[in-house]
Amino acid sequence: MDMDDLAARILAGERRALSRAITLVESGRADHRRQAMALLEALRGHDRTALRIGLSGTPGVGKSTFIEAFGLMLTGQGLRVAVLAVDPSSARSGGSILGDKTRMERLSRDPHAFIRPSPAQSQLGGVARRTREAADLCEAAGFDVILIETVGVGQSETMVAEMSDLFILLLAPAGGDELQGVKRGIMESADLILVNKADGDLKPAATRTCADYAGALRLLRRRAQDPQGFPKAMTVSALEQAGLQTAWAEMQALTDWRRAEGHFAARRAAQARHWFEAELREGLLARLRREPVKSALVDLAARVEAGDLSPALAAEDLLRRHLGE
Amino acid sequence: MDMDDLAARILAGERRALSRAITLVESGRADHRRQAMALLEALRGHDRTALRIGLSGTPGVGKSTFIEAFGLMLTGQGLRVAVLAVDPSSARSGGSILGDKTRMERLSRDPHAFIRPSPAQSQLGGVARRTREAADLCEAAGFDVILIETVGVGQSETMVAEMSDLFILLLAPAGGDELQGVKRGIMESADLILVNKADGDLKPAATRTCADYAGALRLLRRRAQDPQGFPKAMTVSALEQAGLQTAWAEMQALTDWRRAEGHFAARRAAQARHWFEAELREGLLARLRREPVKSALVDLAARVEAGDLSPALAAEDLLRRHLGE
Repeated sequence: MDMDDLAARILAGERRALSRAITLVESGRADHRRQAMALLEALRGHDRTALRIGLSGTPGVGKSTFIEAFGLMLTGQGLRVAVLAVDPSSARSGGSILGDKTRMERLSRDPHAFIRPSPAQSQLGGVARRTREAADLCEAAGFDVILIETVGVGQSETMVAEMSDLFILLLAPAGGDELQGVKRGIMESADLILVNKADGDLKPAATRTCADYAGALRLLRRRAQDPQGFPKAMTVSALEQAGLQTAWAEMQALTDWRRAEGHFAARRAAQARHWFEAELREGLLARLRREPVKSALVDLAARVEAGDLSPALAAEDLLRRHLGE
Repeated sequence: MDMDDLAARILAGERRALSRAITLVESGRADHRRQAMALLEALRGHDRTALRIGLSGTPGVGKSTFIEAFGLMLTGQGLRVAVLAVDPSSARSGGSILGDKTRMERLSRDPHAFIRPSPAQSQLGGVARRTREAADLCEAAGFDVILIETVGVGQSETMVAEMSDLFILLLAPAGGDELQGVKRGIMESADLILVNKADGDLKPAATRTCADYAGALRLLRRRAQDPQGFPKAMTVSALEQAGLQTAWAEMQALTDWRRAEGHFAARRAAQARHWFEAELREGLLARLRREPVKSALVDLAARVEAGDLSPALAAEDLLRRHLGE
């Protein structure tokens, strides 16, 4: 496969080329990895910028319904929308077998939308790289908006926030007690909190929940990258397609402000650095899983467990003899 | 300083030798580090085993009062007690300037007790190694019980649980709402939950809180290293010295069972392995902070931030050129 050719076809917006390229960045094979790196370099230099929107919502908040309604609204305005998914739990269930497309039937048939289900991968580090690079590919392919959704298991919310221009928390209406359900760190990463299901019987609860979160957000210190009034909490109804236009207007207003103030580019730069350091850490630790280090490690670990060698001395020994210290 | 001589004096139970040795393992100087490693090797082979009790309690639960009362009860039974402290927040305040001894005045004057305040160190990794090695030294010096206390900031609770034979959570009476204040992972590490201040006006609240935690503990899956009925929740009053004997009897019963079933030794072996792996990780990452890697990293990071190089390619470049990949 010629990477310059594949790059040209991605830049021309060919969906099959994009799918093939994402399969390449998802692969664990060393030769695929080399090809993926070459492809990403071949794509460097285009001046397209998509708006990357991270979206976290636990099962039950109506995430698929929201993405379908929000996505169709955007494509209805002539925008091209890509949907990527990060679901660490799918590694256990063998990936989304039925695929995310059955969840978002109308959006998946929309020629202006591209939906890529969550891959079955066990390491969050691998998932992070794959999703980041898939987003780069979608950006090169000319998509205007890239939605990166996650169920928020473990560290996946933080990971998605670290690769998004905007980070949105989708919540369901709840009693005041459940307010603590959102992790503190995630609350502080959110640019917009959307309380879904503001329809029918749940409307009063949604309004109340929204007010609770708006109150909580006011307690957080304002970040440099936030204009007055952000982060915000709003109600929406994906089912009735209510509030979606307003939410999108807020996202655009925030993005415009950040671009004008230089925060948009600064955030992308800081994220790139973050991922560089994460890759370095992962690369260093990968050596422990390769021979002959792996065998030496097994041997030393046995002696440490038996109490014949201190953890510190064993580590020093391995670093000195096998890892070029 | 001759390490064989220092080792002999520690084994003979000389307090000044022990203090000096702990100062050595706390030091960040490379020559001190080498001496500390030699000392720990010289001490290897003694067959003393202290009971290491990790104790976590946030400020306000009466931790100092508890340690003083509990420690005096133990020394009253002829046991020798060492108290080590892990307080990551002390790094900011410049360490316990007044010292932990003023908090536990009677225990600190007890000839059978040894209290070592928390050192001022910034890295949790460094604090972990120092505390682990200080516990090894106390064990060699013939202490019967080593209390390792922590305020439970950040990862310090997990760290202390990973170096203790028993892990105890000290809590204050509270309303039902505050039950969620204990981190889930920590609840699962606890062998015993002690609700303090079961005295005076707070007694009913303490009893209620204890029942709440006992209920919550029953919802956790039983661990292989727990006999029937553990983990347990109990009330104590450090102020009135009530319940301390019962708590100590439970700790002994649990320890005896674990020793008989082989879980005591297995837990120490697993902990040794855990710390070996932690030291390895730390050793590998330390290279990124040394020249010439550090300069190359700064240079590559700038190019990644500018968007001239992908995080993955930059990491690969550094690993290949500077870290012997």
